[in-house]
Amino acid sequence: MRTIFWEDNQLKMIDQRILPGRFEVVSFSDHVSVARAIQDMVVRGAPAIGAAAAFGMALAGFESTASSGHDLFNDLQNASDTLKAARPTAVNLAWAVDRVMWIADKMKEERSAAELRQLILDAAQRIADEDVEINKRMAEHGAALIEDGDTIIHHCNTGALATVDWGTALGVIRTAHEQGKNIHVLVDETRPRLQGARLTAWELDQYGIPYELISDNMAGYFLKAGKAQKVLFGADRVAANGDVANKIGTYMLALAAHDNDVPAYSVVPTSTIDLSLEHGDLIPIEERDPEEVLGIQFQGERVAPIEAEARNIAFDVTPNRLLTGIVTENGVVYPPFDVNLRKAVLG
Amino acid sequence: MRTIFWEDNQLKMIDQRILPGRFEVVSFSDHVSVARAIQDMVVRGAPAIGAAAAFGMALAGFESTASSGHDLFNDLQNASDTLKAARPTAVNLAWAVDRVMWIADKMKEERSAAELRQLILDAAQRIADEDVEINKRMAEHGAALIEDGDTIIHHCNTGALATVDWGTALGVIRTAHEQGKNIHVLVDETRPRLQGARLTAWELDQYGIPYELISDNMAGYFLKAGKAQKVLFGADRVAANGDVANKIGTYMLALAAHDNDVPAYSVVPTSTIDLSLEHGDLIPIEERDPEEVLGIQFQGERVAPIEAEARNIAFDVTPNRLLTGIVTENGVVYPPFDVNLRKAVLG
Repeated sequence: MRTIFWEDNQLKMIDQRILPGRFEVVSFSDHVSVARAIQDMVVRGAPAIGAAAAFGMALAGFESTASSGHDLFNDLQNASDTLKAARPTAVNLAWAVDRVMWIADKMKEERSAAELRQLILDAAQRIADEDVEINKRMAEHGAALIEDGDTIIHHCNTGALATVDWGTALGVIRTAHEQGKNIHVLVDETRPRLQGARLTAWELDQYGIPYELISDNMAGYFLKAGKAQKVLFGADRVAANGDVANKIGTYMLALAAHDNDVPAYSVVPTSTIDLSLEHGDLIPIEERDPEEVLGIQFQGERVAPIEAEARNIAFDVTPNRLLTGIVTENGVVYPPFDVNLRKAVLG
Repeated sequence: MRTIFWEDNQLKMIDQRILPGRFEVVSFSDHVSVARAIQDMVVRGAPAIGAAAAFGMALAGFESTASSGHDLFNDLQNASDTLKAARPTAVNLAWAVDRVMWIADKMKEERSAAELRQLILDAAQRIADEDVEINKRMAEHGAALIEDGDTIIHHCNTGALATVDWGTALGVIRTAHEQGKNIHVLVDETRPRLQGARLTAWELDQYGIPYELISDNMAGYFLKAGKAQKVLFGADRVAANGDVANKIGTYMLALAAHDNDVPAYSVVPTSTIDLSLEHGDLIPIEERDPEEVLGIQFQGERVAPIEAEARNIAFDVTPNRLLTGIVTENGVVYPPFDVNLRKAVLG
């Protein structure tokens, strides 16, 4: 089953907030609910929110009562603003919405509203289908880097749940495992939302890949002790120079890998690469509700004092100098990233 | 009130496992219970467990039915083994027990059992009293490094609760605050035991020092963004070359400070410096119950899958090259640490 799919004229998504305790598929029939689901992290992961937003645009098409392609396009414009505003950092959200809007714009004068609605749904479906295919290609390129016996440190969740299916960095791990390579994963729990403890652990259980959870701040110990041979993560946006915005903690993890000469790779579809931004400091960084930090409990009790305040920075930027390579569906990109990323994206 | 004190022939300690929800003082009347309390982290923090163990030795003295100083010494020897085995990394534990045993050994032939018992209690009391005085001296030296307007990232708990009173790194922050310096603290929550979220936040609330909690993996963001001017932490053991074993996560924090030219200081009494170990890789590193990692809850539900396994490395070693200085009661020690630490310890 895919994480995100279209069925009975609805968008259906696995609710990632309640895994691994409960497995539930939620249905959406309007784009505003989809935007809220992206914001609330019912669905998360850069490629996944891209596909979800594309289907959100399809829903917006069916919601609109416009009778001409032209009028429908105007309604879609509003919906695209709503969806793109849901989360700022992952560029796939804007990329997917813009791709749908480009088609709508091109066809708005020559097609009827009904035809345009179908074209948009087809485009969304294509984005979802392509995502799976692209992930498999990325995974093949990435798995070639993994050696038998490797212990791999993995940050956040980048698996089937972060995409439509298969995954980016975790897709590499799955493919290496399917190739018969004997691998072990150290799973960063990934505070504050704990996508590692919650989602990556659950996925690895499904796939039968051996793993151990660690708190994020333990990665340095394993790297320094020579007990990890690779570091893998995804990305929410890659700048033209190869700076990588990804889940908070990636920068410190990449630093520790670099300090111990352990190769670190970001695994991303080219749709995550934003050639319009020269470097990573230009990537907008989301700050989320402090309750995600403060609400942690142990033995049923809240840990932080009631009066405590917190910051909750959702992403950080890893400078390109800390990366060994960036794995894309078009191959592994090595430095100089400013030259080679452009080639990987534009061909 | 001190974190650790002697009253009514008992050792009394604040139970640090249930703060900030509940404030409770627990009484101990035998050394085995003290060893267990150290293991279970009723009391934690290198200087605090040193003082607790010294009082544990005093209890062992009163537990013994020996009628001669010589026989009492033999009983004390057993107790010292039990107490020293409670936790391996912090050297203060062994340091305090050995200091008591040195006195017992010296006096065992010339004093009665009753006299020896009192001598040991006096020695423990002296260790506790000195700890407070030493902390205040460290804090003065360290506070001179803090500038008005500094934002300080602090790891774990190093305050009154980690010592007999006042604190090491947090003692520096308290003194800087009392000097009228306008400071702000970013408190690493410090997974897995959350001593930052649980204890440091609680202490800072008591002292009226403004702070915000962050997850450990956010420190890199703030350092890279130029939003933190100092990094402070304690230590559980410092090797002769200045390598610092401290709460897990310190290494990655120090790396991020170093990568951004932000000064990082370890604040320690000289009793934490172990000149017998040439470098940090010789320091024993404790691994604790995986449940400390796995047991994390959010909204009343356990996050990790039931079947998940975890590693729980309690400390890491920060190489001396990442430290700006080591603050002791005898002044701030700068590189070359192998030369200057020896001077600070031996005078």
